[in-house]
Amino acid sequence: MQNVDEDTITQIVLARHAEASSTRLKQIMTSVVQHLHAFARDVQLSEEEWFQGIQFLTEVGHITDDKRQEFILLSDTLGLSMLVTALNNRKPRGCTESTVFGPFFVEDAPHYENGADVGNGARGEPCFVTGRVTGLDGEPVANARVDVWQADSDGFYDVQYAGTHEAHGRGTLRSQADGTFHFRSITAESYPIPHDGPVGRMLTALGRHPWRPAHLHFMIDAPGYERLITHVFRSGDKYLDSDAVFGVRSSLIADWERHESGTSPDGIAHDSPFSTLDFTFVLNRVNAGTGRSR
Amino acid sequence: MQNVDEDTITQIVLARHAEASSTRLKQIMTSVVQHLHAFARDVQLSEEEWFQGIQFLTEVGHITDDKRQEFILLSDTLGLSMLVTALNNRKPRGCTESTVFGPFFVEDAPHYENGADVGNGARGEPCFVTGRVTGLDGEPVANARVDVWQADSDGFYDVQYAGTHEAHGRGTLRSQADGTFHFRSITAESYPIPHDGPVGRMLTALGRHPWRPAHLHFMIDAPGYERLITHVFRSGDKYLDSDAVFGVRSSLIADWERHESGTSPDGIAHDSPFSTLDFTFVLNRVNAGTGRSR
Repeated sequence: MQNVDEDTITQIVLARHAEASSTRLKQIMTSVVQHLHAFARDVQLSEEEWFQGIQFLTEVGHITDDKRQEFILLSDTLGLSMLVTALNNRKPRGCTESTVFGPFFVEDAPHYENGADVGNGARGEPCFVTGRVTGLDGEPVANARVDVWQADSDGFYDVQYAGTHEAHGRGTLRSQADGTFHFRSITAESYPIPHDGPVGRMLTALGRHPWRPAHLHFMIDAPGYERLITHVFRSGDKYLDSDAVFGVRSSLIADWERHESGTSPDGIAHDSPFSTLDFTFVLNRVNAGTGRSR
Repeated sequence: MQNVDEDTITQIVLARHAEASSTRLKQIMTSVVQHLHAFARDVQLSEEEWFQGIQFLTEVGHITDDKRQEFILLSDTLGLSMLVTALNNRKPRGCTESTVFGPFFVEDAPHYENGADVGNGARGEPCFVTGRVTGLDGEPVANARVDVWQADSDGFYDVQYAGTHEAHGRGTLRSQADGTFHFRSITAESYPIPHDGPVGRMLTALGRHPWRPAHLHFMIDAPGYERLITHVFRSGDKYLDSDAVFGVRSSLIADWERHESGTSPDGIAHDSPFSTLDFTFVLNRVNAGTGRSR
């Protein structure tokens, strides 16, 4: 029989997967085992450290429930989510880049007409957003489904409030014949990711803060085009260079123009401040390729 | 600012750990991030596969409680536990090798005098164990604390039975002046690890069985010597070459001698079968080194 020792164990484990139910699963688990073992060897992991890791993952599992997904938060804060997003969304230059999905999307958010108030009572300074959906050649994309969601000025998404079942700062719209859409909401502010659990303690131990720069989430679907999941980040935010989840791509930063008072795009006169944002989303055609030779 | 993309993200994450609270934590997390990212790149992990991984870890977390540790089971079945054991227990040739601790040890098991029945009612054929604790030069080690624990003939440890608080097949003894100890228990049988959860499903998908070859667990402590955590495996067991947790080292296999009837070592006449086992445990002196130049 084979003797299991620190030098032979990796090959012994991999050989045990000869009868895996799919070649893809076998490929993935081969890489998992190789990297897991290489990690333990690289750092000469002690038994106490191994057990601390077991305890950490147990805590991550126990705080995770229907409303809170600490494993996604862990993936986000270690840059894995953004890496997977980048690997799976290679596009030709000129297309709007993708970024992390995040844990706060909700299926079946309410539908709004263009011009409506998607904020729906969420706390924050008014913001008027105009957008345009186009293809790479500048062609307008009409009737695209536009999902938007955002945190309020206290840094919380509607789903983070206990007992709230109504959408606030969240909704879907359709782009018009010229590809444009517009809505009212609230001005995005920077906020910390949930950091009262094991991932928060990890960030503290690593000397990191839990803040994300201000952003709006968008998911845009249109027939013939690849789904786009992205954010628009607010220029000037002090966390743009240190996003806790590594989601910032420079092409996604835009100006929120602030107005002390005046008439907003919907024709209403304001005697208090509001902001305006305009952004163009460029979709990649399905099967258009990545524009990258790798 | 730095643009986060699939090529730059790993260095961007690592740079964020410049202010980690300890150099060891920084070293460990650097390796974690590098291997996690290299894994995603190696297999070009899809977003759907990433999410399946998140869901798998969530299930592992949710089935884990005071009595069941599915993360340890996951570590065991991927060979990580045995690798960490091997990395941390390098010893000179001639010392008894270490193997995995497993999740079924209990602190403060009852103390037994030599010759007592540690089985204490556990189901199984009687087994009479004689052991000897020595140092590498053959010197007897007196008054060593010997913890022994094992599953019953149905494959369950006492702690796996709901509502049981009494120890069965589990106890501590002391070695005598000549280093020997002896006790009665039950004959070890092969058994499956808990496989009704996500780790069991993983094993099935990988074409693997959940069985462990028959074994007794030992933990031996004596002043001046390194703690020894090991198993003795039963020769002839059909799972010796495919232990679900990769714990078998050939030096730990011993013969359980079977007797159809006769007088057992404690002087009792039996008209039904029993087995006997004899094993010598060789401890490494504290600070004796590893006997390995690496």
